[in-house]
Amino acid sequence: MKPYAIGVDIGGTSVKLGLFSSDGTLMTKWEIPTITDNNGSGILSDVAHSISQTLAERGIGIDQVEGIGFGVPGAVDENNLVLSCVNLGWKNVDITKEMTRSLPGCPRIRSANDANAATLGEVWKGSGTGRSSAVMITLGTGVGGGVVLDGKIIPGTWLCAGEIGHMKVEPGDNTPCNCGKSGCLEQYASAKGIARMARDMLAQCDTPSPLRDMDPFTAKDICSLAQEGDPMALAIVDRCAAYLGLALSYVACTVDPGIFIVGGGMSRAGDVLLDPIRTYYRKNAFLNSDQTPIVAARLGNDAGIYGCACMVLSTQ
Amino acid sequence: MKPYAIGVDIGGTSVKLGLFSSDGTLMTKWEIPTITDNNGSGILSDVAHSISQTLAERGIGIDQVEGIGFGVPGAVDENNLVLSCVNLGWKNVDITKEMTRSLPGCPRIRSANDANAATLGEVWKGSGTGRSSAVMITLGTGVGGGVVLDGKIIPGTWLCAGEIGHMKVEPGDNTPCNCGKSGCLEQYASAKGIARMARDMLAQCDTPSPLRDMDPFTAKDICSLAQEGDPMALAIVDRCAAYLGLALSYVACTVDPGIFIVGGGMSRAGDVLLDPIRTYYRKNAFLNSDQTPIVAARLGNDAGIYGCACMVLSTQ
Repeated sequence: MKPYAIGVDIGGTSVKLGLFSSDGTLMTKWEIPTITDNNGSGILSDVAHSISQTLAERGIGIDQVEGIGFGVPGAVDENNLVLSCVNLGWKNVDITKEMTRSLPGCPRIRSANDANAATLGEVWKGSGTGRSSAVMITLGTGVGGGVVLDGKIIPGTWLCAGEIGHMKVEPGDNTPCNCGKSGCLEQYASAKGIARMARDMLAQCDTPSPLRDMDPFTAKDICSLAQEGDPMALAIVDRCAAYLGLALSYVACTVDPGIFIVGGGMSRAGDVLLDPIRTYYRKNAFLNSDQTPIVAARLGNDAGIYGCACMVLSTQ
Repeated sequence: MKPYAIGVDIGGTSVKLGLFSSDGTLMTKWEIPTITDNNGSGILSDVAHSISQTLAERGIGIDQVEGIGFGVPGAVDENNLVLSCVNLGWKNVDITKEMTRSLPGCPRIRSANDANAATLGEVWKGSGTGRSSAVMITLGTGVGGGVVLDGKIIPGTWLCAGEIGHMKVEPGDNTPCNCGKSGCLEQYASAKGIARMARDMLAQCDTPSPLRDMDPFTAKDICSLAQEGDPMALAIVDRCAAYLGLALSYVACTVDPGIFIVGGGMSRAGDVLLDPIRTYYRKNAFLNSDQTPIVAARLGNDAGIYGCACMVLSTQ
């Protein structure tokens, strides 16, 4: 094993990079903007240039780097071919080929969907440390997720594993989801989804709430008011948690992971959201699997770079 | 690799045994009754005796057997310790210890839950041949299931993986399930569950049906009438399939397997049940995973012995 590894988490607005020692210590992290011009054709050469620069500054040769792991917000196969990545404008981008062209002496490349990489990062150095299996659910603009079993990411046959946000938790609801179907968890538990659901709930009752004077309000407003004890906000959070607890019980009936990790912006609400999720999960989960811990993610935005480095440093 | 392996599928009324060559050919299969007297304390010595006898008849020495795989209808850990198995009266039964005591020269032992073993059997030599991942759902007295990823059984942290029958597909329904909770898939899609649901549906409408003159009717009666085109029976099968298709979509959002295999007595109904399951699955599944095939199991009651032998012959 060479002494260094690099994790590269490509997002729609910025690329996060991390230089790790082979024992998993994050030595330095930095960001560069994601330039999506020309279908994002310059992103990987920007990454290569930035890596070269950082290594040069530290006097590290590329031959001392074990590998570079990539997290991409889209579907990527086991050959590092990004089939489609709408946010970056990518279609059939071969990461290995592009990086080999832009980075002389490029070491081996590994890649994964960004949510899967983040899950692996949390298992490696975050809330899931010491567990061999974990499922992460990320409550952000959308609802993402990742499944790690026996220390390895499960990408799925069609790269759809861990897409917990698209479980149809309300099959009778016709509110359309971005995926083209309806009734998805994401419509109730993403930042946008909980605000939409809140507006519906407010319209259907007379319960007074400061939310009625805040338009438009955000998921953060709802969670803050719930923390302050506002009954309406608590009812909204409770309904969101009911769907989340139910969805996690479906995950448990499938793979029965060692831990559930809740990440993304909304997870910052903490126990006001996590406690009712735990209650609904226990209500729905099968036998002993109802004891599975549900915890907040710990690495925040760094989970991705950790997971990307882990892909290179682990044997998977 | 030694030239033979043995699969032992322990059921509540009989134990199925199979002698396999190391290339996976079933050379002979036989059954012995499951004697559950004295908390099933004689079951494993009966198995040992029967194996000795069959090997002797064929002039095969126990030293030519690579191993013996066991499928048990309960929770069994990675050390072949059966934590609990209500149907057999077992509690904390150490299969390795018992077999070593009863079978001189006993080769290595592997074990799994019977539904998981059956899934592995179908992947190895049945409907899932050639796939590295599959999820099986077994529609029998209850609804069981198993998850095989990368050729290996996923038992789960609490041995609850593959318990698809206990997904709460109707969280608002208070009909109690054997698991102690309610709204489980098993309450709608097991042989008993579909009959119960049918009685409820018949009570809530006036649609004429031969079912009204058959009391008590069975799951088989419902499926036979559906095959004959009886509208009421078709409506019952459709509702059952709606729950099954939804549950399989939850499985796909978690692990996105290469194939779904439907087994158990009710799967003999064939396409009258499988076609609507496929339709509802496609309606609910995420993106490309809606293409995942849903097929009938092929090995019937032999799936267990195949899976048990596979555990010994594969590297898992």
